Amino acid sequence: MNQPIGVIDSGVGGLTVLHELKRQLPKERFVYLGDTLRCPYGSKEKEEVEQFTWDIVHYLLKFDIKMLVIACNTATAIVLEQLKQTLPIPVIGVIAPGARAAIKATQTNHVAIIGTQNTIDSQAYEKELLSIKPDLETYGVACPKFVPLIEGGTFDRYDAYHIVEDSLIELKEFPTIDTLILGCTHYPIIQSIIEEVVGGQITVLSSALETGFEVSSVLTYHSMQATDDNIDRQDPIILTTGSLHTFHQIKEELFQFKSAQMAHITLT
Amino acid sequence: MNQPIGVIDSGVGGLTVLHELKRQLPKERFVYLGDTLRCPYGSKEKEEVEQFTWDIVHYLLKFDIKMLVIACNTATAIVLEQLKQTLPIPVIGVIAPGARAAIKATQTNHVAIIGTQNTIDSQAYEKELLSIKPDLETYGVACPKFVPLIEGGTFDRYDAYHIVEDSLIELKEFPTIDTLILGCTHYPIIQSIIEEVVGGQITVLSSALETGFEVSSVLTYHSMQATDDNIDRQDPIILTTGSLHTFHQIKEELFQFKSAQMAHITLT
Repeated sequence: MNQPIGVIDSGVGGLTVLHELKRQLPKERFVYLGDTLRCPYGSKEKEEVEQFTWDIVHYLLKFDIKMLVIACNTATAIVLEQLKQTLPIPVIGVIAPGARAAIKATQTNHVAIIGTQNTIDSQAYEKELLSIKPDLETYGVACPKFVPLIEGGTFDRYDAYHIVEDSLIELKEFPTIDTLILGCTHYPIIQSIIEEVVGGQITVLSSALETGFEVSSVLTYHSMQATDDNIDRQDPIILTTGSLHTFHQIKEELFQFKSAQMAHITLT
Repeated sequence: MNQPIGVIDSGVGGLTVLHELKRQLPKERFVYLGDTLRCPYGSKEKEEVEQFTWDIVHYLLKFDIKMLVIACNTATAIVLEQLKQTLPIPVIGVIAPGARAAIKATQTNHVAIIGTQNTIDSQAYEKELLSIKPDLETYGVACPKFVPLIEGGTFDRYDAYHIVEDSLIELKEFPTIDTLILGCTHYPIIQSIIEEVVGGQITVLSSALETGFEVSSVLTYHSMQATDDNIDRQDPIILTTGSLHTFHQIKEELFQFKSAQMAHITLT
């Protein structure tokens, strides 16, 4: 099946997922839509997040996508179940893969999750983790300052370090935590700073890597893999509702997409 | 769905998979069958492996299993497709999860696989790896001495080190390899020795851990998770066609199953 896989996010954060998907599944075609104009979703009302997500999903369905990846934790927490029940294609969120990776990694059974206010308030990770492994202890910390920092496009590493340190200070009280889930797809962009702040004893997991594994697994399971072996032919299409300039800047600084077709779009 | 998940192996090696499944999915019930009497499968004729695998699958079907995990690389390489097409329940092998984990981990795109003669000759890992990511370089090394060493139950670490070193000597010629797949479920039992021999530059991946992730993923995807939250009620049932004594010994030395019902069975 050589149709593309659709990937959606509230902004640029999902590019971390797209990057891993492309690396792990180079034969696949991808079309990405980042709703930068209305980003961040993490502090919006639930009904708004639902509406925005459906808007961008409807736009991507025009590309005849064979699978949808919600590369946004907030949208996964709020809209995944609706999308799974409504769409005729497999829908993968980022929460279940991140939770599974944490369960695989933790030895102490004490797992922390950081994310946007909406993701942490939804307790989506806690529910997923405990539904699989009820003997875990979980700790959620909202970090509302991270997404605006990252969506800004460029930031000073020193300032960023202090924002991260302040945001994560309460984790220091729980020395038994050995695993930290980056519960927002933007956060891998500042993963090295987060790792420096929390120290080497804690395994920091990006749901981007794990979602690549899960998408690969579902593709195989449904015999939906691309059959075209020419991996150079499969440049991703990257669409944004916002500034193409910021997208270009972030794409070039952080990711090594050989080439990608990029366009600004307007949702109607 | 509180029916058990069936796990099969040629012997004790699959206990590494069972152990991870139980750790990652404590709510699930498991019934394991190790065909120790006829172990190893790794050097048998293809038709024999097919027949033996079907024998143990038929035995496990009596337990009304909701999913089947083939915790044996040789049987996965030879019989997975047949089983998937024939059985009305999801069937998970150990090769695809191991391959996906290697794709996730490698940065140099040079991946080595070690396994039994049959697994290496089948090139099952190479096919899986290259079907997903055609730009990989793969190196397969058969290690026919490992399974007899491990199935013996106890072994001298010094002797084991030398067997491992001799078996893996040709890998030294390829310094670009950064990822090694343990392509046999017995091998995690000697993983620390293998890691010592290959050195810290190579990530050693056990398909046991990764199969846990894949089983969790498929359970969620099909809404087949166990609903009983009392994880102490879910002791695995462990069956063997061979010596219960060896099984007990290995189980107690290597795994921390709180308790398990164990029995010797005869296939008819």
